[in-house]
Amino acid sequence: DDLHDGRPLQDHIEDPFVSDPVRDSRLRKMTEKPCNAETPADELADSFLTPNDVFYVRNHMWVPVVEHNEADSYGITVELPDGGTRTYTIGELKSRFKQYAVTAVLQCSGNRRNDMTRYAKKTNGLQWTVGAISCAKWEGVRLREVLADAGLSLSDPGEDAQHVQFSGLEAYGASIPITSAIDPRGDVLLAFKMNDEPLPPDHGFPVRVIVPGHVAARCVKWVNKIIVSDEESNTTWQRKDYKCFGPNETKQDWDKYKSIQVMPITSAITRTRLKKPAAVTEQDNKPETRVVQLEGYAYSGGGREIQRVDVSLDGGETWDQARLIDDANLELGSKTWCWKRWVYEGALPKGRGDAKTTFVVKATDDAYNTQPETHKSIYNLRGNLATAWHRVDFNPSRMENGK
Amino acid sequence: DDLHDGRPLQDHIEDPFVSDPVRDSRLRKMTEKPCNAETPADELADSFLTPNDVFYVRNHMWVPVVEHNEADSYGITVELPDGGTRTYTIGELKSRFKQYAVTAVLQCSGNRRNDMTRYAKKTNGLQWTVGAISCAKWEGVRLREVLADAGLSLSDPGEDAQHVQFSGLEAYGASIPITSAIDPRGDVLLAFKMNDEPLPPDHGFPVRVIVPGHVAARCVKWVNKIIVSDEESNTTWQRKDYKCFGPNETKQDWDKYKSIQVMPITSAITRTRLKKPAAVTEQDNKPETRVVQLEGYAYSGGGREIQRVDVSLDGGETWDQARLIDDANLELGSKTWCWKRWVYEGALPKGRGDAKTTFVVKATDDAYNTQPETHKSIYNLRGNLATAWHRVDFNPSRMENGK
Ligand SMILES: [Mo]
Ligand SMILES: [Mo]
Repeated sequence: DDLHDGRPLQDHIEDPFVSDPVRDSRLRKMTEKPCNAETPADELADSFLTPNDVFYVRNHMWVPVVEHNEADSYGITVELPDGGTRTYTIGELKSRFKQYAVTAVLQCSGNRRNDMTRYAKKTNGLQWTVGAISCAKWEGVRLREVLADAGLSLSDPGEDAQHVQFSGLEAYGASIPITSAIDPRGDVLLAFKMNDEPLPPDHGFPVRVIVPGHVAARCVKWVNKIIVSDEESNTTWQRKDYKCFGPNETKQDWDKYKSIQVMPITSAITRTRLKKPAAVTEQDNKPETRVVQLEGYAYSGGGREIQRVDVSLDGGETWDQARLIDDANLELGSKTWCWKRWVYEGALPKGRGDAKTTFVVKATDDAYNTQPETHKSIYNLRGNLATAWHRVDFNPSRMENGK
Repeated sequence: DDLHDGRPLQDHIEDPFVSDPVRDSRLRKMTEKPCNAETPADELADSFLTPNDVFYVRNHMWVPVVEHNEADSYGITVELPDGGTRTYTIGELKSRFKQYAVTAVLQCSGNRRNDMTRYAKKTNGLQWTVGAISCAKWEGVRLREVLADAGLSLSDPGEDAQHVQFSGLEAYGASIPITSAIDPRGDVLLAFKMNDEPLPPDHGFPVRVIVPGHVAARCVKWVNKIIVSDEESNTTWQRKDYKCFGPNETKQDWDKYKSIQVMPITSAITRTRLKKPAAVTEQDNKPETRVVQLEGYAYSGGGREIQRVDVSLDGGETWDQARLIDDANLELGSKTWCWKRWVYEGALPKGRGDAKTTFVVKATDDAYNTQPETHKSIYNLRGNLATAWHRVDFNPSRMENGK
């Protein structure tokens, strides 16, 4: 019974989260209202495309309700620097524009923030571990083609067209540089589908922006307004939250640094298994020789491809290379917008059969960018871009074989 | 007397370097034949655009001789995947095509290799310190417009057009991906001028390729042949030398990794001056308080802009930010292809007035890429991309004030 004296119950009025969807129990909830939940590490390891049900959720507010039968008439208004506006319904975007499919990782700027807290010091923000990242196939129309249709010159957008601002039904907003928005190889989409299904409510139904290679905070969900402007979006998420200061900069002069857009390289270990003892050979016949199998991901923004993943079983003293899983047959788009999953098997360091050690992973992309070694060196109060080498302490005596 | 019995002296015949230009004595010579010489650190600090005379020289062979009166009739042959060729004289390129000016850093993949040797272990290659990098203004025609004129479709180059190969008069050769070659914002030039003068012989007179944001090894000098192909250039400089393996990979499987193209972020301290003691204040009236001034550069490839330079006077324990010098009025081009010079002044760590310490610099670009902490972690046999934090040991007792 939702009515009380003929009016809705007070708590229903005051709780905009009442219509939030039911979430999969496997998601690791950080907060309930708004919903912030990371993908469990096992699921990250298990598939190149993260299933919709366990794709990480990063909401800044409630989930706006749009019914499926309202989707085609849902409108997005585009405003150009001259003040002119043009409103497109999703029905029109689906029928009049070419549809594109792109596979791309989305990653929160706070992914692995908990590592920065543990290895450096306290950070302000959701304490994500390795699961504020996921990968999906997105389908929709190209933003650049919609902007051109609305009247923007792609060859010469003009001095007044520096940023493209997005806002969503629930009031979240952010922007991207015009160069990203109109890059013919940038693959920026207004997306209606996620892994061959309509967008789930948590991921922006009926339409969200996808900016491949950029921080997920720019991929505005439930988008209903797009403004081409000489300024960045005026929201706190654009001008304040998503920036990194130096390790010593406790006073944050927000105008000093640029908003996070293209993401730097990162990697993580998502699963560690102690295998049965390796086959006893003449060279190495100690019964305590044990083999460990590590799995994980590596990702770099800007369409840069991961080309090498280095793994250390001894805390970073010595290195070996992981095998990169070839998922090329699943990749779609103009650049490499996805992660590489990787697997590594190796014997635990000699003489450490029962001793503690630390597993480490670091990756290198095709521009030979690599990760910083310590969180201390990239520490920032907000704990953004915690991309240092990922370390997992390992204590064999506390682990069973096969898991 | 160059003749002996009516023929050139034998050593002149056998020495292709005999016509190499006389070089400025300030250049720090690594090898004479071929000439490899780095820009002195003081000159790097002194100007945004490196003067031609002290621009670092990295030659793989001798300097081909082209007389100034031959320049206009000098030909460059362009070959497309269908086998068709078209030869352009420089005279035609100058008269028929739009001329562009771009400012860009060139940097050898071996810049700072000597640091990797000192801090990790032996590397094979020229032991450059911080001076295998310079910045200049380049003028010429856009490669993409020449390729289009020769018949290549820029909107759909086709599957056979994956790489653009360059070769020079002296036999050096290299290639870049087609996407870099035809990127409308890539600013790839066939350049005739350097800092408002004709290219000096050491830098490719009468024409060289400039690929901003990429390793200088792709910026082929004395270029006379351009081939659009489905393959990379077949030279050792393309397929072997310019790659980075993992720290453990002593056996180099050349096909395993990609050729270096877009450069990762780096930085260096180019000048250290001990200033007079800081003004004595009530808070800090120890006479031994001394102020040090550091200068340097920071650079990232791919058109990414440096946005923060962190300096430590205590070996990386604590950090402060350098002041970035604003040279924006000198910058030309579609992206940020240049370095940022920086200056830092700070008091030597308390209680270390006369003790040794280590100055450290690291930089962050606008995609929040940063440098690795140690050369050990990025060690490779060839000593390529030695981009770790730059460290300079400082011993105040061995330094005079003001220098
Ligand atoms: Mo985020
Ligand atoms: Mo080089």
